[in-house]
Amino acid sequence: MQTPALVVDLEAVEANIRTMAAARPGTALRPHVKAHKCTSLARLQRDVGGHTGFTCATIREVEGMAAAGLGDDLLLANEVLDCTRLGALVDAGTARVTVAVDSDETIGAAAGGGVREVLIDVNVGLPRCGCRPDDAGRLADRARSRGLTVRGVMGYEGHATAVHSNEGRKVVVEKAMHALRTAHERVGGDVISAGSTVTYAHNRVATEIQAGSYVLMDSYFAPMTPEFRPALTLELTVISVSSRYAVADGGLKCLGMDHGPPTLHADTPGEVLVVSDEHVTFVPAQPVRTGDRIRVVPAHVDPTVAYHERLHVSNGDVWEVDLRGW
Amino acid sequence: MQTPALVVDLEAVEANIRTMAAARPGTALRPHVKAHKCTSLARLQRDVGGHTGFTCATIREVEGMAAAGLGDDLLLANEVLDCTRLGALVDAGTARVTVAVDSDETIGAAAGGGVREVLIDVNVGLPRCGCRPDDAGRLADRARSRGLTVRGVMGYEGHATAVHSNEGRKVVVEKAMHALRTAHERVGGDVISAGSTVTYAHNRVATEIQAGSYVLMDSYFAPMTPEFRPALTLELTVISVSSRYAVADGGLKCLGMDHGPPTLHADTPGEVLVVSDEHVTFVPAQPVRTGDRIRVVPAHVDPTVAYHERLHVSNGDVWEVDLRGW
Repeated sequence: MQTPALVVDLEAVEANIRTMAAARPGTALRPHVKAHKCTSLARLQRDVGGHTGFTCATIREVEGMAAAGLGDDLLLANEVLDCTRLGALVDAGTARVTVAVDSDETIGAAAGGGVREVLIDVNVGLPRCGCRPDDAGRLADRARSRGLTVRGVMGYEGHATAVHSNEGRKVVVEKAMHALRTAHERVGGDVISAGSTVTYAHNRVATEIQAGSYVLMDSYFAPMTPEFRPALTLELTVISVSSRYAVADGGLKCLGMDHGPPTLHADTPGEVLVVSDEHVTFVPAQPVRTGDRIRVVPAHVDPTVAYHERLHVSNGDVWEVDLRGW
Repeated sequence: MQTPALVVDLEAVEANIRTMAAARPGTALRPHVKAHKCTSLARLQRDVGGHTGFTCATIREVEGMAAAGLGDDLLLANEVLDCTRLGALVDAGTARVTVAVDSDETIGAAAGGGVREVLIDVNVGLPRCGCRPDDAGRLADRARSRGLTVRGVMGYEGHATAVHSNEGRKVVVEKAMHALRTAHERVGGDVISAGSTVTYAHNRVATEIQAGSYVLMDSYFAPMTPEFRPALTLELTVISVSSRYAVADGGLKCLGMDHGPPTLHADTPGEVLVVSDEHVTFVPAQPVRTGDRIRVVPAHVDPTVAYHERLHVSNGDVWEVDLRGW
């Protein structure tokens, strides 16, 4: 196995899927594929977890899931202004596609592009997409007037993921879900879609949770949800050793850095000094030699996986990261 | 053109190539392809700049350059412990390959893998690869005893790129190059390879400069080298607008974030608030509407380009980013 290589602990992945499925069985969870961009892993979420609907962040993710035969109920939980590729999937009958809308323009794009089902995306406090809660009813009416089926609402309480204490997070989630429930009363439909790995336990309003990170985990979310096991490491080869530090052969082009640098795995302990394009310079806690393999835990899984062509599974399988791009 | 999309200003690229080639013509520059991972752009560096040797950071970059017919003189300016893929290129006659070595192990890998030419990589102050300057002569002897041709030394003064003042950077470069010259006296050979976009003007020792960023530039390096024009922007579509901010359709999976978030381009001014997986939330300086296109300037080009499959060129061409992966 050539380094840098992402390695998946299959036992931990399956344990994570079972843990989440126990709390959120079947369609009560709509796993978000943006966290892993891998249809092999999504299939495991269906087969082991029993989840048949999935959340996507990009058109390419929707297309890839449909092509992999996982298109029973795909939600593009994001606004798009050209829905023709999505509409083509609906026309071909390869996927049921629902898209988030939060404006007249995105409703027009859905209707014009051939998508038939939407959720009204409601802003519940995160500075991102979503309409004002008090505008949700108007948008639902407008969508229906364009011939679209409004399945309900979504509202991502992503601002709660920055709150590290459980109690603090619960307060933020409850406030956000109060807003989403209010919007839902104006919109109607069966679906209230929300949530994430670090808020699912506090969310009593959502009919489905859009968690993604729980499958692989990362060093940022791990302390907040100890019920899930870290399942993804980046394996590197030590290529240079000096008296003060050592250097391994992977860096900024195989690690999402927005949540900071990776941490060394407990099996090969030490401290990361600096990360450059193709290198991690680190101070090993125990002596290492040129040629040794080390493992690091990415700080943020999603943009890390997006750099890689494949995941190396602990049982010897290789999974293609086949949902990359747009 | 679907967004998010990297857009290359071809006129700026050619101006940058000419500016650098005027200071460092022909083989006095060994352009680093890690900055763009694109053989179409490397070909322009050869054809417009007259540079025939290139610097690579990964085996895949070497293979891709050889496959594109750009293998006249490829330096892998990095340590590797399995040189069989490089040796295969040498055996096939598709490329001249020189690899950096800084230890007995990497010398053994070069000789064992079928690479015939090396540079002794010398640590000149950056906490990364490279032997101690006083060990360079011993390593050169060892490499020659293994049948390798030692072409000279390399030593990357990357720590100077963190010094923003010209004068301060000059002092760091001079100290680093003093160490490299000392090592070269013990090693011999024709090549002293070093440098970068923000140190080339201060480097009086290197026979060849390994600059990469100068072609496309980014918002981090630009203030240090105003002679080069920003040539790369990320084009995004505004997908949601609220009273306080707007949201565009690209984020952490299309932007290297180690040097911080991107900045809005002067043509579509404003302030970036937050970057998430597939979104940039920003405060526009002038009103924007859903469906508008905006442009951002990446803070760090190299890990940004590595996320993308292609570059959209201002003349309508599309260049594949064909050197990704390892």
